[in-house]
Amino acid sequence: MAITVNPTLSTRERLERARDAAPHLAELSTAEKNGLLLAMADAIEAQSASILAANRKDLELSGTTGAIRDRLLLTPERIDAMAAGTREVAALPDPVGETVVEWKRPNGLLIRKVRVPLGVIGIVYESRPNVTVDTVALALKTGNAIVLRGGKEAAYSNQRLVEILSATAGLPKGAIQLLDSTTRESVQELIQGRGLVDVIIPRGGAELINFVVENSIVPVIETGAGNCHVFIDKSADLAMADRIVINAKTQRPSVCNAAEKLLMHEGIASAYLPRIAKQLSEQGVELRGDEATVRFLSSFKVQPATEADWGEEYLRLCIAIRVVSGVDEAIVHINRYSTKNSDAIVTENESNARLFLRAVDSAAVYWNASTRFSDGGEFGFGAEMGISTQKLHCRGPFALVELTSSKYEVIGSGQIRA
Amino acid sequence: MAITVNPTLSTRERLERARDAAPHLAELSTAEKNGLLLAMADAIEAQSASILAANRKDLELSGTTGAIRDRLLLTPERIDAMAAGTREVAALPDPVGETVVEWKRPNGLLIRKVRVPLGVIGIVYESRPNVTVDTVALALKTGNAIVLRGGKEAAYSNQRLVEILSATAGLPKGAIQLLDSTTRESVQELIQGRGLVDVIIPRGGAELINFVVENSIVPVIETGAGNCHVFIDKSADLAMADRIVINAKTQRPSVCNAAEKLLMHEGIASAYLPRIAKQLSEQGVELRGDEATVRFLSSFKVQPATEADWGEEYLRLCIAIRVVSGVDEAIVHINRYSTKNSDAIVTENESNARLFLRAVDSAAVYWNASTRFSDGGEFGFGAEMGISTQKLHCRGPFALVELTSSKYEVIGSGQIRA
Repeated sequence: MAITVNPTLSTRERLERARDAAPHLAELSTAEKNGLLLAMADAIEAQSASILAANRKDLELSGTTGAIRDRLLLTPERIDAMAAGTREVAALPDPVGETVVEWKRPNGLLIRKVRVPLGVIGIVYESRPNVTVDTVALALKTGNAIVLRGGKEAAYSNQRLVEILSATAGLPKGAIQLLDSTTRESVQELIQGRGLVDVIIPRGGAELINFVVENSIVPVIETGAGNCHVFIDKSADLAMADRIVINAKTQRPSVCNAAEKLLMHEGIASAYLPRIAKQLSEQGVELRGDEATVRFLSSFKVQPATEADWGEEYLRLCIAIRVVSGVDEAIVHINRYSTKNSDAIVTENESNARLFLRAVDSAAVYWNASTRFSDGGEFGFGAEMGISTQKLHCRGPFALVELTSSKYEVIGSGQIRA
Repeated sequence: MAITVNPTLSTRERLERARDAAPHLAELSTAEKNGLLLAMADAIEAQSASILAANRKDLELSGTTGAIRDRLLLTPERIDAMAAGTREVAALPDPVGETVVEWKRPNGLLIRKVRVPLGVIGIVYESRPNVTVDTVALALKTGNAIVLRGGKEAAYSNQRLVEILSATAGLPKGAIQLLDSTTRESVQELIQGRGLVDVIIPRGGAELINFVVENSIVPVIETGAGNCHVFIDKSADLAMADRIVINAKTQRPSVCNAAEKLLMHEGIASAYLPRIAKQLSEQGVELRGDEATVRFLSSFKVQPATEADWGEEYLRLCIAIRVVSGVDEAIVHINRYSTKNSDAIVTENESNARLFLRAVDSAAVYWNASTRFSDGGEFGFGAEMGISTQKLHCRGPFALVELTSSKYEVIGSGQIRA
């Protein structure tokens, strides 16, 4: 079942086609790119039936149920959402061509830093077929060629989507490449494609991300891991703390910006722990805790937390609670165990909040708000490629600007170096 | 000869010490960092004799001569230059703490993107001991801990320098770590130090850089390779072309921004090739060329260029010349063979120049200026860590700002996600 748009090409040939397409994509004007995106959105809607048919094949072959099936499932509404998302990307400002900064040197050289496409973006992802359309739209808007390596469970859906997107009139040949999803070799060749691919973005679970980070010789934007904390300070507004803890933990527990750990100031632990434990239990959240938490919550079912719990990303309705002596201990705990994605303090004490914001070494640090806001849409970017948990290139939610690089254009009148 | 400042520590322990130092470095104020840098400069001058003595040991043990010995050699003047460079870094603006952008969301969330240190920077480099001082200064100015893995030929010099720098009163403990330079294992452990090290910057020859890029699981800023081109268009001011070609090729042939290739518009090849060949020959430059060049230069000694020549970085007084039909062919040639560092066009034709600036996919593209200006100092950055030849994080000459990351501070009043 080696399903690909052009089944006779090797992975290497596909990467070379993307590389060859990149300069043509870089030359497209904003209007041309937006026109292509709008045409893609129309085509997705017009071809909805064939997309659903391909998706049914995937669903039958995979035989999955529950959450995994739900991630793979396409419906007419989800197809409409893909088309709408593509139109939204068309409406966003184009970062390519922007002059970031320009200056003149004493010797008369004019130096201009301009935003340019990255070139070829490689995406390694899992079952959700909407990622195919989302990432193609973001790559096209930023003038990049894209190489997609989706999950094998979504092979027919992705093939159909890429067929539709690739058929857009005026799209430079080779701009979208779909790799064979049935072998690990295609991932290996993609992430070893130094000189052909400019960045690899893994989107999926920890195993996938670790595999890509550990084996890629192409630069990677590491995304996704999220062992997020909420710290309730002594001076917290407890009604606000209720809302934030419940929202951060339960609103969508399977995503990376959901809270996994609750740190509690010892000064309010005896009063507040039973109160929040009751609400968490009512939402079906499994409770784990350190010794003090177990003691304070003697009337609740609380499993003693092990060392492994503090580093674990549950991605389900489970939370581990620890009582700390104050903001300093909370910061030390977070900087030790956090995946440096999103962490929050709930406090009315501004100096504690400022300290927490400054000292917690995470991509997004919150004061009196839910960690669930770490998202390109919620940040106002109009789209999202992922949440970077590395410090190079971009950190936190990222979208269009981060899919560009820059170059220096230097204009002289015969200057030479002395 | 496992020379290290504290010889009992393993590489892993050194990385952990740097990691532990990072938050303390991040908390230093600009004034504190500048004070440390000025104290370091004073100490380098005061301890000059012991640095020279250590350097003599390295020179004796290595037994090298010529250019390699020159790279390793320290003199009183070079030590003064290290101290002066450190003072210059102290005088530069501090990028850390700067608010890059801030905005308010419709739900009232205030989002602020602030510049923060990267954390721990790892440098893998070769013989020049001044790199030790330069990189420590840049890392300290940007609030980063630094792990140095220098060349074994400079082991005594680097040890002495790190001893002096580490002894600076007020420097957070563990801020500067020098790894054992005698084993490849220390490099391996450094570049596998995911979670302990935030970025690796290799500085040196192609072999070193390739080894780091291909084996690191820590993000890398790839530096250094430079197969740079000068294209002489038909309308070029030939006196300007003379100056630029000679400067780009001969002013310092061993560095990455020196020209290695000359592309010549066929319309002026018969007139201009003998003229520039004469000047290059007078400067002792070995000439290679394609068939047309060999024909035009029949009265010169020109070795026929092979396919390998077009991709080679000579780093010495040798140049390969190719006759092209015009700017389009020049662009195609450069995008195929260039290492995407620095490439130049010499022309009086503005539309050709604009096309070249836009279409040549290199970090720095020049119109009527020498490629030798690709340098942090020449760009006005006041310092330089290297020239990035990758597209992620930074591209082209980079210095202080590129040694920082960012984080989002999000301030709310109890917002939760709907």
